[in-house]
Amino acid sequence: MATAGRSGVGTNQEDVRRHNLGTALGHVHRAGRISRAELTARMGLNRSTIAGLVAELESLGLADQAKPSGTRIGAGRPSVDVKARTGAYVLAVDLRVDGLTVARVGLGGVVRARATGPVPPDHDPYAIADSVVDLMRLVVRDVEPNAALVGVGLGVPGIIRGDDGLVRLAPNLGWHDVPFTKILSERLGPIAMPVLGNDADLGALAEHLRGAGVGVDDLVYLSGEVGVGAGVIVGGRKLEGAGGYAGEIGHMPFLPEGKLCHCGARGCWETEIGAPAIALAVGCPAEQVGALGEFLEGVHEATPDLRVVGRHLGRGLAGAVNLLNPRVIVLGGYLRSLFPLVREDVDAELQVHGLAAPREQVLVTLPGLGGDSVLHGAAELAFEPLLADPVGRLATACLDVDSALAG
Amino acid sequence: MATAGRSGVGTNQEDVRRHNLGTALGHVHRAGRISRAELTARMGLNRSTIAGLVAELESLGLADQAKPSGTRIGAGRPSVDVKARTGAYVLAVDLRVDGLTVARVGLGGVVRARATGPVPPDHDPYAIADSVVDLMRLVVRDVEPNAALVGVGLGVPGIIRGDDGLVRLAPNLGWHDVPFTKILSERLGPIAMPVLGNDADLGALAEHLRGAGVGVDDLVYLSGEVGVGAGVIVGGRKLEGAGGYAGEIGHMPFLPEGKLCHCGARGCWETEIGAPAIALAVGCPAEQVGALGEFLEGVHEATPDLRVVGRHLGRGLAGAVNLLNPRVIVLGGYLRSLFPLVREDVDAELQVHGLAAPREQVLVTLPGLGGDSVLHGAAELAFEPLLADPVGRLATACLDVDSALAG
Ligand SMILES: [Zn+2]
Ligand SMILES: [Zn+2]
Repeated sequence: MATAGRSGVGTNQEDVRRHNLGTALGHVHRAGRISRAELTARMGLNRSTIAGLVAELESLGLADQAKPSGTRIGAGRPSVDVKARTGAYVLAVDLRVDGLTVARVGLGGVVRARATGPVPPDHDPYAIADSVVDLMRLVVRDVEPNAALVGVGLGVPGIIRGDDGLVRLAPNLGWHDVPFTKILSERLGPIAMPVLGNDADLGALAEHLRGAGVGVDDLVYLSGEVGVGAGVIVGGRKLEGAGGYAGEIGHMPFLPEGKLCHCGARGCWETEIGAPAIALAVGCPAEQVGALGEFLEGVHEATPDLRVVGRHLGRGLAGAVNLLNPRVIVLGGYLRSLFPLVREDVDAELQVHGLAAPREQVLVTLPGLGGDSVLHGAAELAFEPLLADPVGRLATACLDVDSALAG
Repeated sequence: MATAGRSGVGTNQEDVRRHNLGTALGHVHRAGRISRAELTARMGLNRSTIAGLVAELESLGLADQAKPSGTRIGAGRPSVDVKARTGAYVLAVDLRVDGLTVARVGLGGVVRARATGPVPPDHDPYAIADSVVDLMRLVVRDVEPNAALVGVGLGVPGIIRGDDGLVRLAPNLGWHDVPFTKILSERLGPIAMPVLGNDADLGALAEHLRGAGVGVDDLVYLSGEVGVGAGVIVGGRKLEGAGGYAGEIGHMPFLPEGKLCHCGARGCWETEIGAPAIALAVGCPAEQVGALGEFLEGVHEATPDLRVVGRHLGRGLAGAVNLLNPRVIVLGGYLRSLFPLVREDVDAELQVHGLAAPREQVLVTLPGLGGDSVLHGAAELAFEPLLADPVGRLATACLDVDSALAG
């Protein structure tokens, strides 16, 4: 999607320049490496303006210019490439019910270091925040001197209130109205306020920007963990809903006489396709649901019980297809391991319950980012302030993260 | 929502003027009557530009200027009001499985004449097109001389392909890939090509512009006819999906062992809350489903069977609340008559199956436009080309509709 740069008419010139600088950085960040000619074309500004913006990004330590990597195409002077410099970075956290992943992600979306750890079994938010900080210390250990930490983003399997990051409900963590943003930011001291996002929303964002949904304007990402959520992009924009709570597809009423769900209702879709249902179907002991991923690696053929789970997956997906008419549905989390085993059952149910017109348009697929969709989405969330205003964000970046985390 | 007018920089001046003229007309059309001061504020252009645009609308016969109707507020010169002149009109059609309504709707959204008729029992598209034209003749009989027909819009209970208006599927009419737009336009001769829209999408549009959802950016309109569809507005924009097919909420899988649906699947939501289910619950004979509306007027207390339908309605609405987080859900069609009878049952199921965060934000309500939501939506669809380019559309308007329809 080409984004035209803003012209200066009727607006403060300095605001426009900051905005354009951020837009240019966004293009460099998403592409990793982009030719100056392409950048000029995408932004719809003239070459000298682009040259000035790139020079400023260079002087801010956010980009490098380099000889073009590819073959020269067409006539005229060869364009110079612009590369994201990874000296600006964020800390990204994927908080799952069954584990914690923290990564240091450089500009350009490159994971520079990662660490994983368990989640305290009682899901105590204070203990989880402590674990997050411990893992952060690990991934910043070998950070370059003068590298600038410009944001902290977290993916959480729950409903997040937009204005203060309160976790309204994370049923599978047992959290109701937990101020996790506040709890974590108290531990991060002078480091930028962390930003929380719903895990499925972040998965959708990352797959849209860097994964199976690049160039796709209508996409559903399903986070298949203990619970199942959806991140939905419609017409190129995130489906937010009135309060930012949209996407709770796992709690769609599915079986009238179904199992009791963590949310309090009976028969929600996730009770039939979430990790516990998959674990039961493959004979993974309930207390080892946290190791379900490894367990599924050893399963090479679907049992009859697993095929039932596959049919439930397909029937529910048909509902999403009929209501949302997406081009791509990305199956994340454990659904990644499940789908190849039960693809025929999923397809058969889609065939029966999906209306032809929208069904013909949909591709059900695995994440382009493997198991890292949510992690990358958390990083993108953390980069947003930098891309909105590079100069302003760098001015408040943290340059000594070790001391900050030693807090 | 304020819409800033376009400035002329970098664009063809005449294009900009046409665009601004259409935007001004849109404000007048939606408000019916608006002060010039308010128009100036909403468009973000200067007063003399607005005065010029209004003068042009006057000279085109699309607006009148008048002394303000309300009390004068604040200091300064009193502003002049701008009123929509209904000399430009559209023909709007609400094609339901159980009946046909055609209206002549003037600029400003005023219904000037309406006619209703039955639908040929076998739903033959050629016979239906003939009936539509017959009803059109009735509503244009007393049209003012020189009034300009600027569009024809139809609401259809089916899935419409955007590029050519092919009805991909209207299960309850028994239509598969019926070129109804073509069939009707052959009968309309020189009159502008008719534009078809999904009935629920049009209901949502009209309720958003003129009904229960004015100022609401996240809205679901349910068309409760023989089938049940949803028109969904998210973030102020229509939820289209990849091919414009989004909103088929009636075919959400609902009961695994439910009734067979017209779409071919079993257990779709609409088999439990559509007109036949309501008719069965209130003892309306199957062959009189077309008269269900009158039948329901005589029902003043919910039978146990009807309360079951109410619970199915509430449980399904909870799914929409969880997935879409709308601010308002408007219940159209027969659901208008059903809802007051079973409100407690609907609320109880919403309470159980709706997650607290989105549930607390939603208002389930009746249409602000009564039974005319779809009809008004069809009119708005037909007005769109005029609002996009008043001068261009008027140049091809039909000024002698009688002869055209006699053709
Ligand atoms: Zn639930
Ligand atoms: Zn169906």
